[in-house]
Amino acid sequence: MQVFELFFILGHTLADAGGVAVALQDLQTSDRNDTGIQTAISVLKQRFGDRLKTSQALLEQHSHTMTYIPSQLPDAVVFAQSTQDVQQVVRVCAEYKVPIIPFGTGTSLEGGVNAPAGGISIDLNSMNEVIKVNAEDLDCVIQPGVTREALNDYLRDTGLFFPIDPGANASLGGMAATRASGTNAVRYGTMRENVISMNVVMPDGRLVKTAARTRKSSAGYDLTKLMVGSEGTLGIITELTLRLYGIPERISAGVCQFETVEGACNTTILAMQTGLPMARIELLDALQVKMINQYSGLEYEPKPTLFFEFHGSPDGVAEQIESFNAIAEELGGGNIQWVETMEARNRLWKARHDAYYAMLAWRQGSQGIATDACVPISRLAECIAETQKDVEELGLVAPVIGHVGDGNFHITPLVMMDDKDEVARAETFIERLNLRAIAMEGTCTGEHGIGQGKRRFLRLEHGVGADIMASIKHAIDPDNIMNPGKVVGYLE
Amino acid sequence: MQVFELFFILGHTLADAGGVAVALQDLQTSDRNDTGIQTAISVLKQRFGDRLKTSQALLEQHSHTMTYIPSQLPDAVVFAQSTQDVQQVVRVCAEYKVPIIPFGTGTSLEGGVNAPAGGISIDLNSMNEVIKVNAEDLDCVIQPGVTREALNDYLRDTGLFFPIDPGANASLGGMAATRASGTNAVRYGTMRENVISMNVVMPDGRLVKTAARTRKSSAGYDLTKLMVGSEGTLGIITELTLRLYGIPERISAGVCQFETVEGACNTTILAMQTGLPMARIELLDALQVKMINQYSGLEYEPKPTLFFEFHGSPDGVAEQIESFNAIAEELGGGNIQWVETMEARNRLWKARHDAYYAMLAWRQGSQGIATDACVPISRLAECIAETQKDVEELGLVAPVIGHVGDGNFHITPLVMMDDKDEVARAETFIERLNLRAIAMEGTCTGEHGIGQGKRRFLRLEHGVGADIMASIKHAIDPDNIMNPGKVVGYLE
Repeated sequence: MQVFELFFILGHTLADAGGVAVALQDLQTSDRNDTGIQTAISVLKQRFGDRLKTSQALLEQHSHTMTYIPSQLPDAVVFAQSTQDVQQVVRVCAEYKVPIIPFGTGTSLEGGVNAPAGGISIDLNSMNEVIKVNAEDLDCVIQPGVTREALNDYLRDTGLFFPIDPGANASLGGMAATRASGTNAVRYGTMRENVISMNVVMPDGRLVKTAARTRKSSAGYDLTKLMVGSEGTLGIITELTLRLYGIPERISAGVCQFETVEGACNTTILAMQTGLPMARIELLDALQVKMINQYSGLEYEPKPTLFFEFHGSPDGVAEQIESFNAIAEELGGGNIQWVETMEARNRLWKARHDAYYAMLAWRQGSQGIATDACVPISRLAECIAETQKDVEELGLVAPVIGHVGDGNFHITPLVMMDDKDEVARAETFIERLNLRAIAMEGTCTGEHGIGQGKRRFLRLEHGVGADIMASIKHAIDPDNIMNPGKVVGYLE
Repeated sequence: MQVFELFFILGHTLADAGGVAVALQDLQTSDRNDTGIQTAISVLKQRFGDRLKTSQALLEQHSHTMTYIPSQLPDAVVFAQSTQDVQQVVRVCAEYKVPIIPFGTGTSLEGGVNAPAGGISIDLNSMNEVIKVNAEDLDCVIQPGVTREALNDYLRDTGLFFPIDPGANASLGGMAATRASGTNAVRYGTMRENVISMNVVMPDGRLVKTAARTRKSSAGYDLTKLMVGSEGTLGIITELTLRLYGIPERISAGVCQFETVEGACNTTILAMQTGLPMARIELLDALQVKMINQYSGLEYEPKPTLFFEFHGSPDGVAEQIESFNAIAEELGGGNIQWVETMEARNRLWKARHDAYYAMLAWRQGSQGIATDACVPISRLAECIAETQKDVEELGLVAPVIGHVGDGNFHITPLVMMDDKDEVARAETFIERLNLRAIAMEGTCTGEHGIGQGKRRFLRLEHGVGADIMASIKHAIDPDNIMNPGKVVGYLE
């Protein structure tokens, strides 16, 4: 499919989207409210003393985005220790109309912690307490700075776990803000399905509890789901109630290799349709397999490959394995290599989670332009095939790895950023990828969020819906102080 | 727990909630925009001809609410056949600032289709087409007037089904608007989890597609989840994309009786904690069992009883049954009566769904004040026990039936509405129930919605959150024309 056909399908023009070209190195900055910022810093310095920092190193660390988007530094960092701290910072910033950028672990891939108009970064890492585990209710209450690994360490003796696992050991507040997911989402859902309630400091400093601690409710608008994925543009999360799950009695992982991406995708589709409760099912293309082999010392054939995992009772898992075997065999899968011991399993998933580093090691000196798209699973094989054609046509190096059970995949051009032509080709590539996903009834991001990097595509994907989002943003944050310049919070 | 203690816990006073007393027969009406309404009807009559009706019988039918809340009639009903029809009606109503009340099957329990300031009821029953079934993606696209039974009839030959089943054969648009659930929610979630995307006509007539047709997305604010449960106060749903599931290979239902509600609740808690994927688990108290026996010709002992169902593969279900047996036995459950044939199973669940009619038949001439509350499951036994004490103390007849796996239960005082003293005691009862649920970290409604009946409790439950909801309502519907007087859309 050609790009002009995509435009036709979308019924949009480049102009509608305010110019679609992805400006990797030319993100918009805005007039800074210098007076307000300096005043706010003075006031906050009096209240927070040494917990307010302005050193260059700390400012740089707090705008680090793990990806191609250039850093834009805040003017100060405040280290919050409590909800009251957050409320104080927000009230001061509200008074002087100064931007506030919430900061967790800085693993955003779309510039989520950048400060395009300066302002105050509020670091939530010290708010890292697990407040309560309600084992009978299968939930827990935590502060936003708790990371996913820290939570699971804490839960180890309870027989419970929290399944959502983006590659990075991100903070759970940040994961909620980004509506993150990862390899387990096919079985357990994303942060959307697993945040029960949150405490959020609103742009005027008031504290909102978004929902009761119940499995369901019909009481008014769903503020929890509105805040999940709002990327700090509507408020700052200071407490989360999360769903937990019993650690499965049996876990079995396996690897199956295919001649084609299509065979791997069709196996996934049929497994899902059959109702097999896949816990994880990850696709790697041949190039990604080579990279992982090299980086993690594995020895798979360089072919399209599925990594997968089953959770359940011993009999249940045995039954799932049998069904999956039959499906994979029918659709051209090679012999399944079962990964039985916990050690081997951890090695497999560590290799999967290290994929990004494997890429960078493969093409040394390059920058990985991490991007993601998500389509209905029936269109996935076609979407990947066309995208791989683009890679070839544009002369890029870009492996595919994906949460194929969700129709979500990552393709990461490895770009020498000082090669202007290559950068331009990567921009064209990302533009085509996003337009293609949207044209296939998909979304421009399955799990990375909009941040700064995908604002134009958000508008293309949502049309009038983006106006509705903007009106919500304006109603809740009329002075545009909460993480401005992200999602629909355009700088004006 | 006494009511004054509840107030203490909540930190609220009666005055905060604008007077908590539930005025069953005295709902607020408002100044009507008579000129606007008459003009809008004239304009719409020209466009819709015979599809606009003003006969008294039709107006009454379109404000029928199945419950105690008195009818408040609209001024006209327009029968829409397409999204364009809906847009036309909305644009005319927007121009003359006239209320619009979307109407599905009229099974709201909290006055959702009432027209407290008059206006135009827009009947969506003719928009009842199943537009597409995407079997590979496990989803379907439908119009809002399709009912849950009609959808499952349509799907019969595909091997797929849609699980959400409130008692009534409601329209799926209405179910989405109310964030409905029912007996299967413990396994499959509510409408919140099962609506992938919607087309919504906004208060200015623009059409919004809330999301891509993907299993997940991180692209901006979650408009789908904002619209699910908004009860027609933010827009009118004209198309829905819903998740589907494979019909389970094996379905087994059973009945287990207990000496105490606590035993039944603890069995449920342990089953959930063990990770048993219960498909349904319903609690009936002794009184409800008697009513169902009488109405549906069953012969259970008058004791607290669980109706439950397992879905899965033959081996999987066998394993679930074994685990459940062991748990129930340990916690005081009697012998489980398995319901094996489809006929017997249908009879069991029909009896469950007919519970409301069984109640009315039990106390002839009474009105059932259907209400629902939901608490964390760990508090459920305590919440029901205290509520049953209230029933006794207040001299009411009120059976309990509940989706106990979700911590959600219904208790329905059967009230002779001409007995003012009994009505007053029922009001006290409902007030206590809602305050108790909220004090136990629960919600004033698990699945019935706010409508008119629970607006005061919404404010008590959400505090500042209700202000945020109101600001969203105001941003999206500044003239308050969309189903005014419901949820946070107070009449002013």
